[in-house]
Amino acid sequence: MDNIEGRILTGEELAEKIREVSIAEFFEKNRHLLGYENPVKSLFTVVKEFVDNSIDACLEARILPTIKVLVKQVSENRYRVKVEDNGPGIHPKKVPIAFAKFLVGSKFYRLRQSIGTQGIGAKGAILYAQLTTGKSAKVETSTGNDKIHYFELMIDVLKNEPIILKHEVRENPKKWHGTKIEVIVEGRYIEKRQSIPEYLKLISIANPYVTITFDGPNGVLKFKRVMPKLPKLPREIKPHPYGVELGRLKRMLKMTKSTTVLNFLMNEFSRVGRDSALKICKLAKIDPKTDPHKLVHNQIEKLHKAMTMVKLLSPPMDCLSPINPNYLIEALKREYPNAEFFHAVIRKPTVYRGYPFQVEAAIVYGDELGVSSAKLIRLANHTPLLYNQSDCVITKAVSETNWRSYGVSQSEGSIPQAPMIILVDFLSVWIPYKSEGKEAIAQYPEILKEIKLALQELGRNLKVFMNKKRREIEKKRKRQIFERYLPEVVSSIAKITDKKEDQIKKMIENLLNKKFVEINNKTKGEEE
Amino acid sequence: MDNIEGRILTGEELAEKIREVSIAEFFEKNRHLLGYENPVKSLFTVVKEFVDNSIDACLEARILPTIKVLVKQVSENRYRVKVEDNGPGIHPKKVPIAFAKFLVGSKFYRLRQSIGTQGIGAKGAILYAQLTTGKSAKVETSTGNDKIHYFELMIDVLKNEPIILKHEVRENPKKWHGTKIEVIVEGRYIEKRQSIPEYLKLISIANPYVTITFDGPNGVLKFKRVMPKLPKLPREIKPHPYGVELGRLKRMLKMTKSTTVLNFLMNEFSRVGRDSALKICKLAKIDPKTDPHKLVHNQIEKLHKAMTMVKLLSPPMDCLSPINPNYLIEALKREYPNAEFFHAVIRKPTVYRGYPFQVEAAIVYGDELGVSSAKLIRLANHTPLLYNQSDCVITKAVSETNWRSYGVSQSEGSIPQAPMIILVDFLSVWIPYKSEGKEAIAQYPEILKEIKLALQELGRNLKVFMNKKRREIEKKRKRQIFERYLPEVVSSIAKITDKKEDQIKKMIENLLNKKFVEINNKTKGEEE
Repeated sequence: MDNIEGRILTGEELAEKIREVSIAEFFEKNRHLLGYENPVKSLFTVVKEFVDNSIDACLEARILPTIKVLVKQVSENRYRVKVEDNGPGIHPKKVPIAFAKFLVGSKFYRLRQSIGTQGIGAKGAILYAQLTTGKSAKVETSTGNDKIHYFELMIDVLKNEPIILKHEVRENPKKWHGTKIEVIVEGRYIEKRQSIPEYLKLISIANPYVTITFDGPNGVLKFKRVMPKLPKLPREIKPHPYGVELGRLKRMLKMTKSTTVLNFLMNEFSRVGRDSALKICKLAKIDPKTDPHKLVHNQIEKLHKAMTMVKLLSPPMDCLSPINPNYLIEALKREYPNAEFFHAVIRKPTVYRGYPFQVEAAIVYGDELGVSSAKLIRLANHTPLLYNQSDCVITKAVSETNWRSYGVSQSEGSIPQAPMIILVDFLSVWIPYKSEGKEAIAQYPEILKEIKLALQELGRNLKVFMNKKRREIEKKRKRQIFERYLPEVVSSIAKITDKKEDQIKKMIENLLNKKFVEINNKTKGEEE
Repeated sequence: MDNIEGRILTGEELAEKIREVSIAEFFEKNRHLLGYENPVKSLFTVVKEFVDNSIDACLEARILPTIKVLVKQVSENRYRVKVEDNGPGIHPKKVPIAFAKFLVGSKFYRLRQSIGTQGIGAKGAILYAQLTTGKSAKVETSTGNDKIHYFELMIDVLKNEPIILKHEVRENPKKWHGTKIEVIVEGRYIEKRQSIPEYLKLISIANPYVTITFDGPNGVLKFKRVMPKLPKLPREIKPHPYGVELGRLKRMLKMTKSTTVLNFLMNEFSRVGRDSALKICKLAKIDPKTDPHKLVHNQIEKLHKAMTMVKLLSPPMDCLSPINPNYLIEALKREYPNAEFFHAVIRKPTVYRGYPFQVEAAIVYGDELGVSSAKLIRLANHTPLLYNQSDCVITKAVSETNWRSYGVSQSEGSIPQAPMIILVDFLSVWIPYKSEGKEAIAQYPEILKEIKLALQELGRNLKVFMNKKRREIEKKRKRQIFERYLPEVVSSIAKITDKKEDQIKKMIENLLNKKFVEINNKTKGEEE
């Protein structure tokens, strides 16, 4: 290392020091960007990345996911983490790059709802393992043929390339398919908020078709599926003309296999038919038969502008796959059996920056929930977000909703003060996470608005319940007051009428019960 | 694109779709990670990245920075941004990779206080320009010899490689040195909070040795230096043994040029002399003469453990360079001439994760500041952080400090409610930003604690001022009451003593003034 203290460097000398950084090195030094900033969060992140990947893989291959998670302490601050799924398995040729090379993946380019997208998650966990304990990752996988492939992998950090320490091919007489991954990492295990058990509980609520067995440091937990079949597979879509930036359009034009601008528009975008394509060309003053590779900058600018001016249908929405609200409620009932009120809503899909998205939300209310301030369950494409709550669009939407008008207390601009759980699941083909650690969703205005509308729908249903609850408390109170004076009333009437106290007490009690049944029926009638 | 709707994919088919993503593509799709999520913030981020780079370059070359920033609207939602500095210039060979290839830079590997580190910032701005307007970046630079090099550059997004559209060599008769960069970007210009003028004002406060001229859409602003010389150049340091993870140690051992473990420890770490190195070897049960390349995993683990067990000095602190508090206050006075109270403190340097860091902080109080809630100026290595305030360790420290005990009002856990400005500058060889957009600092406990201590020091000084202020208000109030009754008192005394009212009034006023002078002197005495 040069000692440059006190000396003036020339531009030429400074230039000599420029060097390329591999993306693996970048994430090693900035591991907090991926969620590895303290032992508790790091252990959680490792589990989360592997489980998210397992669910994604099963969904894509249309397999009901059964996932086993093992977390065991091996020394004071080290844990063994193993995640096993019954997914489609990974082709052995692709295993090294799927686990030990950053920014390689199948999901980055396509527009479809899935948990992972970036080709970062699992690699981050393996990088963290080798950084903190120096140990390789062990991967076992089979696509269901007669072989199981076993790998021991590390990442060559300076090159961002996989190092294959071991590769064994084993027999697979039972035609098992799936993937097992095991790492040893530095970490600390907790069971309260922002913990592994909490995450597994929440992901099993938001994905009620998953069964997860968790063999943790303090014993086994099981989350059983309450939904017997998979939700529909979200469809992959093409980009919508309204959401494509000029630079990206330029690149698409350069790389297209289409030989005319007309075909380019029809083939590479969603919602562009022949008529719309011709309209776009006309507006841009481009002959539809022009070779797209030959457009010059000015023409591309005009084409880009014209694309946003022609009226087109919104993107197709079968790229999104919300959970049936009945199953969502069933899963919530499984986890919060003592709650008094459950409600779930699904908003219609809509669009931000050309990307389709949809909000699903649910509310649980109950004095027995053990929370005084509302607990938020934030989800993105059915995966729970446990960290960075204060910076998330979901939190903003909850705080800015006027819950007082639905009968629960709230200080202005805060989370409502009531024993309830608010679940919001944001579904999209592209989630605008605020960091690679996938902890919070960015505050696009269209997203904020849709979440608020979902919360208002929940709020109106909550209000009906709260009113009923209040009336019942009121009735109870009145009856209690009456009952307090009952003995005196009874003895007075007995004296006046010369009848037996028992007889009178029974009469009055019958009257009372009848009256309350009437009130109850009336209340029910009001609600319908 | 395959249509996979309704069909079950095999693991082998799924594997086929795996593809490598370039880091440029990654940031293009995730541009909000770099700060390009809406037009206002994007325009701000472009200016910030270029200005940060200019200041860094000047500091490193020991040149007093004079920076010109130009932002002009060219169409409804497009702006031309040009930043020119008088820095050392960039060697022409290195220009393309310095501006148009991600993760290439001179600063990633060294441990020294600087604004930029990652080799991302300026490239992000150029990527954003070509994405939104399709225009290349224009760079003009000279290292002060007889040639100026002019480039037009774009980024090949799929390959993360520079595209050189034009390169001209021009005469430089005046031996000008520096760099000019110009881009056309989509954006929206504002002048209130989180704006370009606000950022330039703050960076000129935190770097009082900089002169910045801003030629904006609404006219010219100038921020003149109040500090006539550069702060000392922070020194580059080697990593400290306490902060090196096992995986990194392993790599260092593999790549070292040292031939013995003893030399390895002494050469590649700070604060490890011969004695400490021998102690570490002894603890790890490794012969000091062992070839470091031949250590096996078990030995490396032991070495790693031993490195943290031997008592060593903290890292050297000349890698940090705070601003002289007098200049900081002078710069604050320039921007807030009506404020009543200024104070600045510098804490002693300390360490988190093996990285040295230091907190500098200042407070400004004044009823005329026009703020009812304290305004935070958050800085990292002298560069202002304008976004994501809620998620920053500085905000947390301010909210958790008990300002009531210093005489200003505050609701528990909030920013104090008082007309004041709190400036916190976090200096370190490695800033743990929460995202690549460099908006907020992560909440490491050591960092939180140090910032709180700095704030408490400010608070104690504020208290003295607040007490004095309160006493003066009280005196004023008393005098006003007295003066209200003065006419009656005067006329009564006049009647009794039979003297002229004018005479008596003068006497009493003289007495009154004398009394207040006494009180004033007494108050001053108390403070000293």
